[in-house]
Amino acid sequence: MTRYKLTVEYEGSGFRGWQRQAKDVSVQQVLEEAVQKFSGEEVTLHVAGRTDTGVHARANVAHFDLTKDTTGDVVRDALNFHVRPHRVVVMGAEAVPESFHARFSATGRSYRYLIVNRRPPLALLSHQAWHVVRDLDAGAMQQAAARLIGKHDFSTFRAQGCQANSPIRTMDELNIWREDERIFFHVAARSFLYHQVRNMVGTLMMVGSGQWSLADFERAFAAHDRRAGGPTAPPQGLTFWGVTYPQN
Amino acid sequence: MTRYKLTVEYEGSGFRGWQRQAKDVSVQQVLEEAVQKFSGEEVTLHVAGRTDTGVHARANVAHFDLTKDTTGDVVRDALNFHVRPHRVVVMGAEAVPESFHARFSATGRSYRYLIVNRRPPLALLSHQAWHVVRDLDAGAMQQAAARLIGKHDFSTFRAQGCQANSPIRTMDELNIWREDERIFFHVAARSFLYHQVRNMVGTLMMVGSGQWSLADFERAFAAHDRRAGGPTAPPQGLTFWGVTYPQN
Repeated sequence: MTRYKLTVEYEGSGFRGWQRQAKDVSVQQVLEEAVQKFSGEEVTLHVAGRTDTGVHARANVAHFDLTKDTTGDVVRDALNFHVRPHRVVVMGAEAVPESFHARFSATGRSYRYLIVNRRPPLALLSHQAWHVVRDLDAGAMQQAAARLIGKHDFSTFRAQGCQANSPIRTMDELNIWREDERIFFHVAARSFLYHQVRNMVGTLMMVGSGQWSLADFERAFAAHDRRAGGPTAPPQGLTFWGVTYPQN
Repeated sequence: MTRYKLTVEYEGSGFRGWQRQAKDVSVQQVLEEAVQKFSGEEVTLHVAGRTDTGVHARANVAHFDLTKDTTGDVVRDALNFHVRPHRVVVMGAEAVPESFHARFSATGRSYRYLIVNRRPPLALLSHQAWHVVRDLDAGAMQQAAARLIGKHDFSTFRAQGCQANSPIRTMDELNIWREDERIFFHVAARSFLYHQVRNMVGTLMMVGSGQWSLADFERAFAAHDRRAGGPTAPPQGLTFWGVTYPQN
């Protein structure tokens, strides 16, 4: 038996999220079925980032165990054949030690969020961005975001249904920059609470639009209460960016 | 009667190109029907860039004449309401003199082409890029592209069915650059022959992949014969970027 690590890219709008559902197609189901078509084996994938419906991935990482004697390159090419026509791609597959766990071995995760800030609706990026009409000040959002760096109680950004034991997380990076009408958020931490990134982006938007002052933002963050935070940014603007492991 | 200039963005994968078809939905049809729903008037749109099926637009420009007494902002908002759920957006609408013609007044057009250069198939950009597996050398392509700048006979890149009187065009700009796995082409000229950009990109790809030398490329260009050129790059990598008019 060999454990394989998969790095996967997917377009979230075609899936009901990562996790298997009773009905509706999920990324996990498409990949597990591709493994079965290729090997005849029923496997379970474990993933670093269990993304929601509509959320994309550039380099999410999953693992599974296979009895069949094969190689990473064959696994990659076979899965890419069998996942069609779904918009998910195996960027790489490699044999890893059995001690490797896609979720529990991860020491860092990063996400990117995209806002398109303009009056007209979106045609080109309608499935890849959050459309915000109010003028946003990226500098003001970056200033507020700086307060989130380090170890804090992130309850203000924690959705109901979050299964984490603790609301304490350590934010390693939160960079915000504008390129013409696009505003990018890049965030990195060891792990995140449920909906944490989308809730942080929605709350920072309140500052960027001038509806909230920096003091309002700090009060909301210090309240440790989701009801004190801003709205949840919609899923289509979010991309699971990457995972780091100790050996990387 | 007032003439309105529209600047439009659209996602090409949902349309059978710009131009009205007997069946299949086109951008022109969706916009003309939106004008009719808004004003009750049957109008004909004239466009700067008649894009093919699958080709996108960031800022294509069209005009039409309206009897109804209204304003550009109302036209913009009404059309954006009535085009839904199609992925086309009116970025701006403004009243212009009757001497303005979206196609014939244009003094410059630009396009952008995107290649994703990697082994795995595409999930995130499958409708927005050409997937090329062979390693491409952007520098070699830029060197070949430099030969196309200026006034030349572009018959090698002219598709059958081109209605232009002459194959002579003046290429003002052809820049090629790589950002990680993505290779961008930005081209600008007063006007282009039918499929010229896609044929140039496909032919430059032959140089970038090392299948052709620079001398091969020059011979093909000098042949003034489409059969001497490389393949036609697929439509989904192409975006009509913008138009310039004398008053801009």
